[in-house]
Amino acid sequence: VITKVRVSAAEAVADIADGASVLVGGFAGGGTPFNLLDALIARGLRGLTVIGNSYFQVWPLVEAGCLRRLVSSFPAPRDPAQRERFRALHDHGDLEVEVVPQGTFAERIRAGGFGLPAFFSPVGVGTELASGKEVRRFGGRDHVLETALTADFALVKAWHADPYGNLDYHLAARNFNPAMAMAGRTTIAEVEALVALGDLDPAAVVTPGIFVDRVVPVPSQVAWTARGQRQSYATVGAVKDSTQPRFGGKPRLTRELVALRVIRELEPGMHVNLGTGIPTVIGNLLPPDSGVVLHSENGLLGYGRFADEAERDVDLVSATGEPVTLSPGACIMSSGEAFAMVRGRHLDLSVLGALQVAENGDLANWSTGHDAARGVGGAMDMVAGVGRVIVTMEHTTLAGAPKLVERCTLPLTGRGVVSQVATDLAWIEVTPEGFLLRELTPGWTFDEVQALTAARLHPAPNLREMEM
Amino acid sequence: VITKVRVSAAEAVADIADGASVLVGGFAGGGTPFNLLDALIARGLRGLTVIGNSYFQVWPLVEAGCLRRLVSSFPAPRDPAQRERFRALHDHGDLEVEVVPQGTFAERIRAGGFGLPAFFSPVGVGTELASGKEVRRFGGRDHVLETALTADFALVKAWHADPYGNLDYHLAARNFNPAMAMAGRTTIAEVEALVALGDLDPAAVVTPGIFVDRVVPVPSQVAWTARGQRQSYATVGAVKDSTQPRFGGKPRLTRELVALRVIRELEPGMHVNLGTGIPTVIGNLLPPDSGVVLHSENGLLGYGRFADEAERDVDLVSATGEPVTLSPGACIMSSGEAFAMVRGRHLDLSVLGALQVAENGDLANWSTGHDAARGVGGAMDMVAGVGRVIVTMEHTTLAGAPKLVERCTLPLTGRGVVSQVATDLAWIEVTPEGFLLRELTPGWTFDEVQALTAARLHPAPNLREMEM
Repeated sequence: VITKVRVSAAEAVADIADGASVLVGGFAGGGTPFNLLDALIARGLRGLTVIGNSYFQVWPLVEAGCLRRLVSSFPAPRDPAQRERFRALHDHGDLEVEVVPQGTFAERIRAGGFGLPAFFSPVGVGTELASGKEVRRFGGRDHVLETALTADFALVKAWHADPYGNLDYHLAARNFNPAMAMAGRTTIAEVEALVALGDLDPAAVVTPGIFVDRVVPVPSQVAWTARGQRQSYATVGAVKDSTQPRFGGKPRLTRELVALRVIRELEPGMHVNLGTGIPTVIGNLLPPDSGVVLHSENGLLGYGRFADEAERDVDLVSATGEPVTLSPGACIMSSGEAFAMVRGRHLDLSVLGALQVAENGDLANWSTGHDAARGVGGAMDMVAGVGRVIVTMEHTTLAGAPKLVERCTLPLTGRGVVSQVATDLAWIEVTPEGFLLRELTPGWTFDEVQALTAARLHPAPNLREMEM
Repeated sequence: VITKVRVSAAEAVADIADGASVLVGGFAGGGTPFNLLDALIARGLRGLTVIGNSYFQVWPLVEAGCLRRLVSSFPAPRDPAQRERFRALHDHGDLEVEVVPQGTFAERIRAGGFGLPAFFSPVGVGTELASGKEVRRFGGRDHVLETALTADFALVKAWHADPYGNLDYHLAARNFNPAMAMAGRTTIAEVEALVALGDLDPAAVVTPGIFVDRVVPVPSQVAWTARGQRQSYATVGAVKDSTQPRFGGKPRLTRELVALRVIRELEPGMHVNLGTGIPTVIGNLLPPDSGVVLHSENGLLGYGRFADEAERDVDLVSATGEPVTLSPGACIMSSGEAFAMVRGRHLDLSVLGALQVAENGDLANWSTGHDAARGVGGAMDMVAGVGRVIVTMEHTTLAGAPKLVERCTLPLTGRGVVSQVATDLAWIEVTPEGFLLRELTPGWTFDEVQALTAARLHPAPNLREMEM
């Protein structure tokens, strides 16, 4: 009898050869097949093409020199020294990097798994990530032709497997794994437990065994940190201390106060996605009875405040990496389905950080332009799919340069997509006439804020001090 | 507090207006929102566009005169009198009918729900259902551009719902419901039970509440028969009595014996899809320890023999409507995922019935050409996605006309797709040189079979009598 079960990760990856293409599951560390990655790195292969969401999945392979090409949403590590090495590899032509908007990343893999070679998507139109791609109008809106992603191998991380290879996933460890399991020509699953045939509820199987070629039962590892060591999310996802204003001189709003200003815009029943940076603070400050439903693109709908030490689970983090809790009525899905909610226009609001916002509503928040070591994540998907985008950011850069500008000079995330901007100095609306200054941080004057803004501010007729 | 719960089906559909477009869930009767359909029919609306898999979902609306346009995979009822009325409506121009291959039907709805306007598919290339559509080559293979399907309303049938609208589905009642719930601008769910927020396991929610606008708890109805009455699947899915040969004169193989000849081709570990007609018999004759995994496009992998009276469940039928059992290791998925297995080339064999097979391997099995009242089902998806196709059929029509021909005269299902043909007279291989006759039904000669064949038969060097 042929069995799919392998006794070791080493045996399971033994036939991956130099130059192979490999899909690697996981979003942040959750759902990442670290044991298979270790075994793959130990093979000392060269010239691999790896398709993985972020540096959690790809960095150890980069550092080990296994890669020729990388397809990823967030490839660059956060650690400055690693980031420098990543940039050097790229600049010397030793590593080819294709950055893909995160929802498009999910859909391209899903299309591959579903046997569909290409599809049109509204995401990324007008940005550099769409350059050279066919654009066509459907329903009065431009769409980009995106092609399917498949690979010789898929390495996925599941929870239970039966001997046929039926798989389920632990909480948000689902993320990209089901789509990747379908898109690998040979799919290898690292699983936490092997159960008997018939033990899994047929309706609870997420990946049917038909897609799975090998199953390796092996104890799960926790997340990889930026230093290539593993440690718990308690460290990886730690929220930056931000109780003090970051600038000298006159007091600006703290990150928490900027977050609270945005919370005043929220209403019961709204579905909201929160990006990296100040937006993550919003989830933690929302009262439990707010009625606001938080969406996270790794595959959560209805998450709540940050988890405390006792509640933490590596498989229950938001897309920005923070350990979170689930609210009653929460549900868990794949990342592909999470982005379907975005692209299908079911979200009411996206709150994002920014590098620059222009007076025409253009947003730049994913690249400083000359940086190969960058990632785009889900931002392009958000601005293409969500009708209202609020930007939260410091009014100026650390060096004091204005971030509100006439025209963005950095690569765009989306054209004319920003509705409002909450900074540590002001609450601003983007109108057809440009920036409308509605509220000022207490203690600041119109002229002072205008002096730190590289575009004209129009004072609202009822311009007033911000209230909390 | 706004609640999604409605006390009656009538209230839930009260704002559907003349001319609206409506998606209706269900595959055969399973997962069909019959209570919502009743309420909709009672409204006496006109000019609706309805998107539903088969006559189970659409016939009552057709009969009630509600429809202007129909998008369906199997629209025509089986009942001859109903079929005649259906044809008359179509011929008089009172009803526009768009027939869509079943897997493409699932994907077009999914694309709509996922916010993607169009995609390329390998299904239906070279057939009349692809005529007028853009064709483009990817990976050396032609693909057809298919567009998304969405609608003003989606009527779905779920199992449990919580007040937020999170849904799960009972067994194979899942089918098209999750995709349709995402593709409706207003989605109305008929559910069997309302549970408290938090009662559903987040990981077991199939349709997140973000997609659901109204929930109606109401007792489930059983399946609709061809006469518009409801009765159990015991009647609807009954297998035709086929223990006697259907032709006079010299004995031919019974349907069971033709099925057994195909079973000799099966090996442990093979994944096999069985079409309508003789192929359905195969599933019932397979020994339990065969190791063959049966796939059903409504969303089952690993089903077994027909269910007996005590085991029958309206939500556990194969795609051909027979009540079936689940084997250990079975899993249940949506129809979209079931067709992903097909299009993604994971099936080893498709066994289909046919109207005509040509010596170049062309297959015609979905339309008699001049019949508006027809359906295509999943056959085009199967032949586009499965490398080996065995046709089982009677060697001649009821009128005695040959079904093995030089060139098909009926509309094609696929070009050059048939590998072997099992008839009640012979076992034939399709080769580059044409039909290779390998085995004869005992008692029949080469010349006798050739005389009932409208293409040249090449006798195999080792031509012999069939053994069972």
